[in-house]
Amino acid sequence: MAKINENYLKLQAGYLFPEIGRRVTEFVHENPDKKVIRMGIGDVTQPLPPSIIKAFKEGVEEMGKADTFKGYGPEQGYAFLREAIAKNAYADNGINISADDIFISDGSKCDTGNIQEIFGNDNKIAICDPVYPVYADTTVMSGKTGTYNAGYYEGIIYMPCTKENGFTPDLPNEVPDLIFLCFPNNPTGTVATKAELKKWVDYALEHKSIILYDAAYEAFITETGIPHSIYEIEGAKKVAIEFRSFSKTAGFTGTRCAFTVVPEELLAYDSEGQGVSVKRLWNRRQSTKFNGVSYPVQKAAAAVYTEQGKKEVTEIIGYYLENARIMKESLAETGFEVFGGVNAPYIWVKTKDNMSSWDFFDKVLNEANVVGTPGSGFGPAGEGYFRFSAFASRENTIEAMDRIKKMK
Amino acid sequence: MAKINENYLKLQAGYLFPEIGRRVTEFVHENPDKKVIRMGIGDVTQPLPPSIIKAFKEGVEEMGKADTFKGYGPEQGYAFLREAIAKNAYADNGINISADDIFISDGSKCDTGNIQEIFGNDNKIAICDPVYPVYADTTVMSGKTGTYNAGYYEGIIYMPCTKENGFTPDLPNEVPDLIFLCFPNNPTGTVATKAELKKWVDYALEHKSIILYDAAYEAFITETGIPHSIYEIEGAKKVAIEFRSFSKTAGFTGTRCAFTVVPEELLAYDSEGQGVSVKRLWNRRQSTKFNGVSYPVQKAAAAVYTEQGKKEVTEIIGYYLENARIMKESLAETGFEVFGGVNAPYIWVKTKDNMSSWDFFDKVLNEANVVGTPGSGFGPAGEGYFRFSAFASRENTIEAMDRIKKMK
Repeated sequence: MAKINENYLKLQAGYLFPEIGRRVTEFVHENPDKKVIRMGIGDVTQPLPPSIIKAFKEGVEEMGKADTFKGYGPEQGYAFLREAIAKNAYADNGINISADDIFISDGSKCDTGNIQEIFGNDNKIAICDPVYPVYADTTVMSGKTGTYNAGYYEGIIYMPCTKENGFTPDLPNEVPDLIFLCFPNNPTGTVATKAELKKWVDYALEHKSIILYDAAYEAFITETGIPHSIYEIEGAKKVAIEFRSFSKTAGFTGTRCAFTVVPEELLAYDSEGQGVSVKRLWNRRQSTKFNGVSYPVQKAAAAVYTEQGKKEVTEIIGYYLENARIMKESLAETGFEVFGGVNAPYIWVKTKDNMSSWDFFDKVLNEANVVGTPGSGFGPAGEGYFRFSAFASRENTIEAMDRIKKMK
Repeated sequence: MAKINENYLKLQAGYLFPEIGRRVTEFVHENPDKKVIRMGIGDVTQPLPPSIIKAFKEGVEEMGKADTFKGYGPEQGYAFLREAIAKNAYADNGINISADDIFISDGSKCDTGNIQEIFGNDNKIAICDPVYPVYADTTVMSGKTGTYNAGYYEGIIYMPCTKENGFTPDLPNEVPDLIFLCFPNNPTGTVATKAELKKWVDYALEHKSIILYDAAYEAFITETGIPHSIYEIEGAKKVAIEFRSFSKTAGFTGTRCAFTVVPEELLAYDSEGQGVSVKRLWNRRQSTKFNGVSYPVQKAAAAVYTEQGKKEVTEIIGYYLENARIMKESLAETGFEVFGGVNAPYIWVKTKDNMSSWDFFDKVLNEANVVGTPGSGFGPAGEGYFRFSAFASRENTIEAMDRIKKMK
């Protein structure tokens, strides 16, 4: 008799975005004349810029000719892309990362989930609260937790990120083995300073823990001195895996390309305490359960690092960041306490009068016809907060803010 | 302290294709003047046909314009592709599969590995011997086996596929919970008749087992009466998941697109024996750990089902099958006992004088400068056999066969 993985039964049914989708669909159905502006899901809206489209099409054309056709590529990604990343995303910023330690994938969501497969179920995982729901959900699926209770899965170490600690977690009382950190943060839009990241790297070095560092939004950092990579911190290569993505950086949410850095130096331990190369395990996982990213997509991703590509991508990010600036200013003027939005495409808003996140969601949807994301959907410590994404068009951003100003 | 998944340590280091690669690299290094013909790895060589390239490029162009740009798509794949598959791959062949039961992915290799995540580690897995190594390797990684010993992982039920049973497995003595079947078969190139598949479906129905049916090579079936899908068998929707791919069908090994059918009717069981929808679990897995296939790739895949696309793809498959016919005939003339090659792009050759598979590999490489795949690399029952792939160019196919004829 085929038996299910019962860990799946522990998962809470109400994954955040389907529930938002349900309420929005209902609203649209009942109010067909209202123009709804969507600032909920963190999805980009600006098209791929010309130099990326050009490279993408060239890649497709190569697939149509016998002498340039590509069959199976390396599971780890083509060298041309890995090398472009090593140079542009790292070396040019003073960080030495070998192209061989970079693994190309079809998404950071996939990687942050899949990475757990190479670690045993006897690891204790720490995650921030609030946080991107995928970290917790994949931890549950993998069998590393107990049951769900009042917003928390038993066995996960939750680290509250609140106004009081500047939305960066304090070191937990119990020592975790794997630590998910995400900066610039989703959902709060806040960042960690070098000193804060150093605290975590030192802690991981001391405890032989591993930091799973999600830097999907690093391209949005505008303030100097804020680290773009965990590897800016000394010793981080021994204790950290970094996830980066072309999704938000270059509008690849529908094109699909990302990468994960697993440094040669990084060790995890077997039951006898012997160090084992994490890179070797990840390489084995990827070689066996993955077949590489579509060749034309890798060509398109590499174009992000050309001179023209960089210019175009920077322009699009500037566009979203100007949206964020407008939103932050407008929401503050409207009397909201606002966070984030300076180094990230997310604005984290405190609701007024301690209104619950979902009540605020309904209010904004009904009165302003604007969709945002309830903070409580990211974890109990997000209750009373609300996330607005800056990925809308300029026109919609301005209109949404005007409508919110007029709310009762 | 971060702990590894120790199941990875059970994996045998010598994954088949890297070892082939190593020997070929060494040979080429020592014999730089010899032209090596590669018929080892099952990778296609013919470019994507014009109608697929056209759709692929149109998809890319849409990504470059604001009004047609696509961000995140459905994790399950776009409806246009799921519906095209339901109609063309199933309904037109008299099989009723709902588009909603079809999950688009970036590869069958990924899916056949990932599917194991939704099943508990208390399942007994049956696999054929010899077989595509990924089934066993991912079973080991997931923690469903003991250690490796003399070609076999403890806890897996191996089902020998030999000349005696026509390379289709007999029902095992011990009842498995999950049964991997692959027809047309990799590596033997042989097929299962409707009666043989019915035997398995009835067995699975009786024991509440689930068949994981890999039909990646179905497009190569030429003989009438041979099932293209497990769902041609009555009752199969209750007990079978089917994996299909555009890789070999339409030359997508470097483009990456596949699909998996998980019928609504299919149940697995929790520890209390209650039936749970496998589709619901797979949907949750895909929604949480996957983000859909690149939009232009899905556009390209849908073009496979246009009138022109079908014509072009059939032509390419015909090209490879003619290679297979030439190889089969030539190898038989050379005195080898040959199997497969009629409904599959693989020829399964018995070595002469009980020569071992790896010795034959070295002989063919050294004397004919042709690369094939040692049968023993697919499992102990493959010892003494050798796999040739029909995916080379016509010219190389003919030359390779001529060279093999001249071997001592």
